[in-house]
Amino acid sequence: MLDMFLKVSGAAAIAALLFVVYLIRYVLSKPQGTERMAFLSKSVQQGAAAFLKQEYTWVSGFVIVIAAFLAAVGVVKPELRLNWMTSVSFIAGAVASACAGIIGMWIATRSNARTAAAAESGGVKAALDVAISGGAVMGLTVVGVALLGLVIVYKIFNGDPTIVNGYAMGASLLALFGRSGGGIFTKGADMGADLVGKVEAGIPEDDPRNPAVIADNVGDNVGDVAGLGADLLESYVESIIAALAVGAIMFTANPGTTVFVKSFPFFVAAIGIIASIIGVMYVKKFAQSNPQSALMNGTYISAILCMLGVFGYSFLRGEGFSLEGVQYAWYGPAVACFVGIVAGMAVGFASEYFTSGKYNPVKKLAEGCQTGPAIAVTGGTAVGMQSTLGPVIVLAIAVVVAAHFAGVYGVAIAALGMLATTGMVVAVDAYGPIADNAGGIAEMAHMDPGVRKITDNLDAVGNTTAAIGKGFAIGSAAFAAIGLLSAFMLAANVTEVSISNPMILAGLLIGAMMPFFFSSMLFGAVGKCADTMIQEVRRQFREIPGLKEGKEGVIPDSTKCVSIATKGAIKGMLLPGGLAILFPVIIGFSPLGTAGLAGMLVGAIATGVMLGIQTANSGGAMDNAKKYIEEGHFGGKGSEAHKAAVVGDTVGDPLKDTVGPSINILIKLMCVISLVLAPLFAG
Amino acid sequence: MLDMFLKVSGAAAIAALLFVVYLIRYVLSKPQGTERMAFLSKSVQQGAAAFLKQEYTWVSGFVIVIAAFLAAVGVVKPELRLNWMTSVSFIAGAVASACAGIIGMWIATRSNARTAAAAESGGVKAALDVAISGGAVMGLTVVGVALLGLVIVYKIFNGDPTIVNGYAMGASLLALFGRSGGGIFTKGADMGADLVGKVEAGIPEDDPRNPAVIADNVGDNVGDVAGLGADLLESYVESIIAALAVGAIMFTANPGTTVFVKSFPFFVAAIGIIASIIGVMYVKKFAQSNPQSALMNGTYISAILCMLGVFGYSFLRGEGFSLEGVQYAWYGPAVACFVGIVAGMAVGFASEYFTSGKYNPVKKLAEGCQTGPAIAVTGGTAVGMQSTLGPVIVLAIAVVVAAHFAGVYGVAIAALGMLATTGMVVAVDAYGPIADNAGGIAEMAHMDPGVRKITDNLDAVGNTTAAIGKGFAIGSAAFAAIGLLSAFMLAANVTEVSISNPMILAGLLIGAMMPFFFSSMLFGAVGKCADTMIQEVRRQFREIPGLKEGKEGVIPDSTKCVSIATKGAIKGMLLPGGLAILFPVIIGFSPLGTAGLAGMLVGAIATGVMLGIQTANSGGAMDNAKKYIEEGHFGGKGSEAHKAAVVGDTVGDPLKDTVGPSINILIKLMCVISLVLAPLFAG
Repeated sequence: MLDMFLKVSGAAAIAALLFVVYLIRYVLSKPQGTERMAFLSKSVQQGAAAFLKQEYTWVSGFVIVIAAFLAAVGVVKPELRLNWMTSVSFIAGAVASACAGIIGMWIATRSNARTAAAAESGGVKAALDVAISGGAVMGLTVVGVALLGLVIVYKIFNGDPTIVNGYAMGASLLALFGRSGGGIFTKGADMGADLVGKVEAGIPEDDPRNPAVIADNVGDNVGDVAGLGADLLESYVESIIAALAVGAIMFTANPGTTVFVKSFPFFVAAIGIIASIIGVMYVKKFAQSNPQSALMNGTYISAILCMLGVFGYSFLRGEGFSLEGVQYAWYGPAVACFVGIVAGMAVGFASEYFTSGKYNPVKKLAEGCQTGPAIAVTGGTAVGMQSTLGPVIVLAIAVVVAAHFAGVYGVAIAALGMLATTGMVVAVDAYGPIADNAGGIAEMAHMDPGVRKITDNLDAVGNTTAAIGKGFAIGSAAFAAIGLLSAFMLAANVTEVSISNPMILAGLLIGAMMPFFFSSMLFGAVGKCADTMIQEVRRQFREIPGLKEGKEGVIPDSTKCVSIATKGAIKGMLLPGGLAILFPVIIGFSPLGTAGLAGMLVGAIATGVMLGIQTANSGGAMDNAKKYIEEGHFGGKGSEAHKAAVVGDTVGDPLKDTVGPSINILIKLMCVISLVLAPLFAG
Repeated sequence: MLDMFLKVSGAAAIAALLFVVYLIRYVLSKPQGTERMAFLSKSVQQGAAAFLKQEYTWVSGFVIVIAAFLAAVGVVKPELRLNWMTSVSFIAGAVASACAGIIGMWIATRSNARTAAAAESGGVKAALDVAISGGAVMGLTVVGVALLGLVIVYKIFNGDPTIVNGYAMGASLLALFGRSGGGIFTKGADMGADLVGKVEAGIPEDDPRNPAVIADNVGDNVGDVAGLGADLLESYVESIIAALAVGAIMFTANPGTTVFVKSFPFFVAAIGIIASIIGVMYVKKFAQSNPQSALMNGTYISAILCMLGVFGYSFLRGEGFSLEGVQYAWYGPAVACFVGIVAGMAVGFASEYFTSGKYNPVKKLAEGCQTGPAIAVTGGTAVGMQSTLGPVIVLAIAVVVAAHFAGVYGVAIAALGMLATTGMVVAVDAYGPIADNAGGIAEMAHMDPGVRKITDNLDAVGNTTAAIGKGFAIGSAAFAAIGLLSAFMLAANVTEVSISNPMILAGLLIGAMMPFFFSSMLFGAVGKCADTMIQEVRRQFREIPGLKEGKEGVIPDSTKCVSIATKGAIKGMLLPGGLAILFPVIIGFSPLGTAGLAGMLVGAIATGVMLGIQTANSGGAMDNAKKYIEEGHFGGKGSEAHKAAVVGDTVGDPLKDTVGPSINILIKLMCVISLVLAPLFAG
């Protein structure tokens, strides 16, 4: 029966990929608009491709070294069962992530001009159709590739956790570099473009005269599409793997093992994919003039279908099971899954409350901007800190309830539940930057202002729905990390994590420090990248005659700016990424040992989850406070309040787009590395 | 022999208090300068006294409720041994803290004008003598009162930890309200004074026309003198109590109990007081024209004397002991003590590196200010985050080394070692605001600019030496919290804190969230207080004719401003303080239970320590980056870089003076409440 579920999962994954092929052909069949639009789209495509090539080249160096290390361990210490097979699985995970990144980016950068053209010819509905199709390519590629690869690896290596866990590590490694590199690129370019273009030269956003605008648009794609895709692919893979690992380890030692429990994660993944495909089809078919409700309904439909499937299956085939001496009912895992989905949404709504201009926190923040930039920043920080309360209470309750119904296994399943409909969530998330890019192209190609209005509207809707996606990402990161940590402790035989053990204490302090130190490095990298960009944009305005004045036929050297952002991102991501890999290894081999490592992971989860929520929501709140003022409140654009809000937004941008998402991956990566290398440390 | 050490400790405490009496008489014997100076000093005295009265009135409400609750527990559940005796001990701790606060503040507000007058008549040496005498009153009152009270409570209740722990809880409660209330007061007044006075009205700092200047000066005293004193009194008491509690619990169940180990904490405290008295006398006697070296040497002399005493005593009377099956040598506790002192200094130097204008981080931050306020704030945040690395590595090593030489007991002793010379550390710390206030009075009384130069120099020196004091505070907070947590786990019989226990997980997440949520409340309170102050200062400038223009005889209504800051501080401190008390109780009684509570404390320590370091150092770095620019770098005063740095400083001020120190107390308070109520939760 387990074998059957591998087949069902594989089939669902293949279905997703076939649907992707259909969507790609559909998007490519649409017209690109004028020659100018095609040219702009092409520039973004080339910039994005160049960045991805550079990024993957560097990252493949890391992948090769790590794979060789694992293989070498197998030669030196064959008794650990950590060998070339884990390397293969690890490489497979990395390749799966890279594939998803390349395909998603490829189509996203080809959907932007087409979305703008569709907006011009067919209005909101047509534009939404193209944009969501482009986003869905990313979303369904992520789940399709990830699950198919996992099924193959699982099948070949007979589900051996020591090997299969490598797959998650590969995905995690690429996610960290994708998110941090993409995040540095996008914010370096954005700050460079804004600080010289908007502030110094006084030209509008997305103005074609600004040499950094193409880099900024490329950044939206490498950060928000490729980075996001790699991020959620990792969470998705890890939530399945954590459930499998906890299941495999706990149930092997347990007489109450049932095939039902072992196959359940695969079933959830399969049903989630089908639910996501239906959700995307719903948006494409039934979207009317209201994109907001179309996207929300699509998301709800996926979640509900997924739940119905999970409960239906549990009702038909579920069996009770026992874990650590406690007996759980047949519906236990289904309830845990349900808890995960609801918790993910609740966290999303909590984020939405603190970051949307519709509610009090952002309104009050905007009001505070009248007192100046210092209050804007302090207020934004405070809102982010305050916003940790809700999600944490939700997560804590979810942990307790999930565990009540299915023990530790339930916690892992709750994480999986949150991520079951990843296909749909990523589709909606990736749709945002496509709409944003379409707006940029409309501006640069001097299209009718009505087009820009449509794309702006689509973009705004994307921000709201993306908040829910972020909630899933945050919640699932916490849960997946906890699941992986549990698996690590089981694998490394660390049964007792007593704080009175000084090794654990020391590890805890070091782990708690990691997210802070890691964030400081990312801040530094963004700052350096932005600084170089600023110098270059200033240089071009100074040295290219007629550029600033907008003389006919004078175009900026955008390629140079893209290359600067690429270099800055690559340089900036290597050190923090390398440290994230090395730290668990160093601690594991140090006198602190596996106990200290467990402590370190606990510490990293504790600060990482909070810092992740705080930075994401501080940044979001500051961004939307600025937008709220721009809508005409407290003096509107150009007022003192607006100037203060712009400062707040500039502070918030790297928080929400570089630091926040990277921290989520950092904690998961450290957990999964510890899990994979557990035999090495324990032995 | 234990009894003998109680007597030795008591004698040392009384010696400290006698020296305090001498110092008070000495300070009061100095002239106050002109009538105008006496008047200004009087205004600050009245403002500070009014605030303390209000604060203690409100806090006594909390004290009464908690004491009644403890007594009620004794009536309802007599078998828990938690009863009116713990109430008495708790009240004693609160009263000790209040006494120290009142005496320290009383003399500090009487030393300011006298320091200014001494600077005028006797130059640097005379001014330093008065200022350090005033600071030493605070420092030695803190240790004298705290230790004397503890010895009495310990003696009366025969060292029963259930009762004695209450003493620490009383001290901790007052510290939290003292720090958060004082912090809100000082930053609310400071921001109000600066934003209207300096920025809007364009009048210099400490100008007598500004209605909020007196409140600002009062704030320095209530925040940096009374708040700091209560803070370090708490740490001091808790480090002794944690060592006693761990000792009492572990050695009772242990056949290797020795009187040496039980009496050691009292001995360290006694020798530390003697060493501190000598350190203060050194500064008073041998201070020449270089106050920097006098203060540093005084600090070193105290530390070295303390170490010599500890090692000498261990050599003469030390005995080996066994703990959890491990045998430790006679020098184990002495080495742990040494590790604590060295670690405290190392953390201090690390803070100094990241926050002083002499080193690269602040210089680079100042350079970044040229790009605007957003980069100033982001850079400052990054510096703070980066600065977590060093202290954490130091603390982790210290934990491991201390534990290697004396087990869990060693960790508690290391905390005590850090705080043994608290008398000297507080003297140096409290000296800073006295010098600062003297400068304010010199300015307002239109004294010779040479006087201001001397006080500014003294103030600058104070900032450097205070950095080391802060290092001790941060390091000891982490250690004391860990010691208290260990004691709690022993008392509540939580032997296994496995992360795979969902209750612990849920608790961990909630605990990790607490410092963030708590900080957001403090931010909010500072913002509100500053806002009201701004309105009031604007109103006075508008409505009092001739005030802004500096017409002869027109004086502002300073009392109103003091009263606004007082109200803002009281209102702002109640909710976060109340929550800090309630959270451990709620979690302890919830289904999460003692295991969840242990998880919560672990989570709170993990994020609290990091956030404490980050906020303190971000704020310090931003402050000094501004000062560095004011020295003439990057355009100096009035340049764009300076404007950006002022924004950074305004953001950083509440971070370093309100949020950072309060978080340190928050985690200790939650630990000590859990420890005191452990019998209730466990039973």
